Amino acid sequence: MRYLITIAYDGTLFSGYQKQPRERTVQGELEKALKEINGGKKVTAHASGRTDAKVHAIAQKVHFDLDTKITVDKLEKALNSLLPEDIYVKKAEEVNDDFHARFSAIGKEYIYILNMGEYNPLERNYVYQHNKKLDVVEMERAMKYLEGTHNFKSFTKADEEKEDYVRTISQTNLIRDTKDVNKITLVFVGTGFLRYMVRNIVGTLIEVGEGKRRSEEVIDILRKEDRKVAGKTANAEGLYLKNVFY
Amino acid sequence: MRYLITIAYDGTLFSGYQKQPRERTVQGELEKALKEINGGKKVTAHASGRTDAKVHAIAQKVHFDLDTKITVDKLEKALNSLLPEDIYVKKAEEVNDDFHARFSAIGKEYIYILNMGEYNPLERNYVYQHNKKLDVVEMERAMKYLEGTHNFKSFTKADEEKEDYVRTISQTNLIRDTKDVNKITLVFVGTGFLRYMVRNIVGTLIEVGEGKRRSEEVIDILRKEDRKVAGKTANAEGLYLKNVFY
Repeated sequence: MRYLITIAYDGTLFSGYQKQPRERTVQGELEKALKEINGGKKVTAHASGRTDAKVHAIAQKVHFDLDTKITVDKLEKALNSLLPEDIYVKKAEEVNDDFHARFSAIGKEYIYILNMGEYNPLERNYVYQHNKKLDVVEMERAMKYLEGTHNFKSFTKADEEKEDYVRTISQTNLIRDTKDVNKITLVFVGTGFLRYMVRNIVGTLIEVGEGKRRSEEVIDILRKEDRKVAGKTANAEGLYLKNVFY
Repeated sequence: MRYLITIAYDGTLFSGYQKQPRERTVQGELEKALKEINGGKKVTAHASGRTDAKVHAIAQKVHFDLDTKITVDKLEKALNSLLPEDIYVKKAEEVNDDFHARFSAIGKEYIYILNMGEYNPLERNYVYQHNKKLDVVEMERAMKYLEGTHNFKSFTKADEEKEDYVRTISQTNLIRDTKDVNKITLVFVGTGFLRYMVRNIVGTLIEVGEGKRRSEEVIDILRKEDRKVAGKTANAEGLYLKNVFY
């Protein structure tokens, strides 16, 4: 039986989603709990994609196969009782054998939260503490240049070897917090994202907001297909995988 | 020279404000940084009051004396560069020699944040995860019975020996989050609070919200002056010292 779960996690204390020896990872914790549910037999937890160390998830999607049938309600409860407090299963569902959390995904939504106001120690792991004003109008303009189908090689991890760097960003949004004028959320919806792509885009947008680059430069950066021309990689702690679409 | 600082801290990784041997405390971290600024000579950091382990502060007030005069701007910067990332100095000011962060205080504001919706792993250290609906109207009613000058012995730490358990709660408030219907903030403004008083009040209010007690019972509880008749102590992680008034 194949199952799909929707999970939220606090990335702070994880070395990312993907299992690594001697590291605390989301996959590692999930597979430990799943093995117990599966009568001691190993289960592989396939996510829609990995998230890096300290990156959070509001709705990551993970599929796996269990040897025995279990109701989704029981599965949800069993997992939540076995998992550590920084991972939570929001939903479990049965899916067909040909469903794959990664390959069946048709899109994803990421958000990145920034604080332009005073440093806030209470949000240091959840909101990027930029702590300086940014020109959000100019940033919003730059985001619009990223919408559409482009080669995003300039925004991927420097040594990332891919056959294809073309991705589609279907929607971007800059949301001003209604309660806190200094807090903004950058939203990116797309067909898929390369490694570090959102963080490299955000790092570049921050430089636009600081007046170090003009918004139109984003067009040049995309065209050059060279990581060196884009901005720095933004910190991981402001980034959330918000949704995966099937 | 006497200085007063306004600090914010994330209580998660502290064993409370007050210094204790072999424990990581806010006072311990502050005094380590202050000693360095004071040319290696010990400085005592007097807070408006202690906060318990895991309790947060949005604006705790602390005074101390330094041997040398330093501008408040420099003091602020020096402290923020020496302090760990979970404490932040928002403001430093010079005060008179007879000012005392604790004894000069005329009031305090505490808030307690609760989540009545689904468990949120990302807020587990910052919002109490009640994860069940509460009757907030009834809770609000109970809060109003607490306003005024009362003997709060029923709501203090069981073994707390005090000459005087009379305190004044000048204002209470139950605020519904405008973005999240499941999140509420309980506000308490008063002349002073006994140990565990806010958490014991909140624990009792939760029982009112669950329908286990009627709101009017709060009147009885106050009158009985006995810790055993009040509700459980609410978890520390939802509590914030929001302000101290002078």
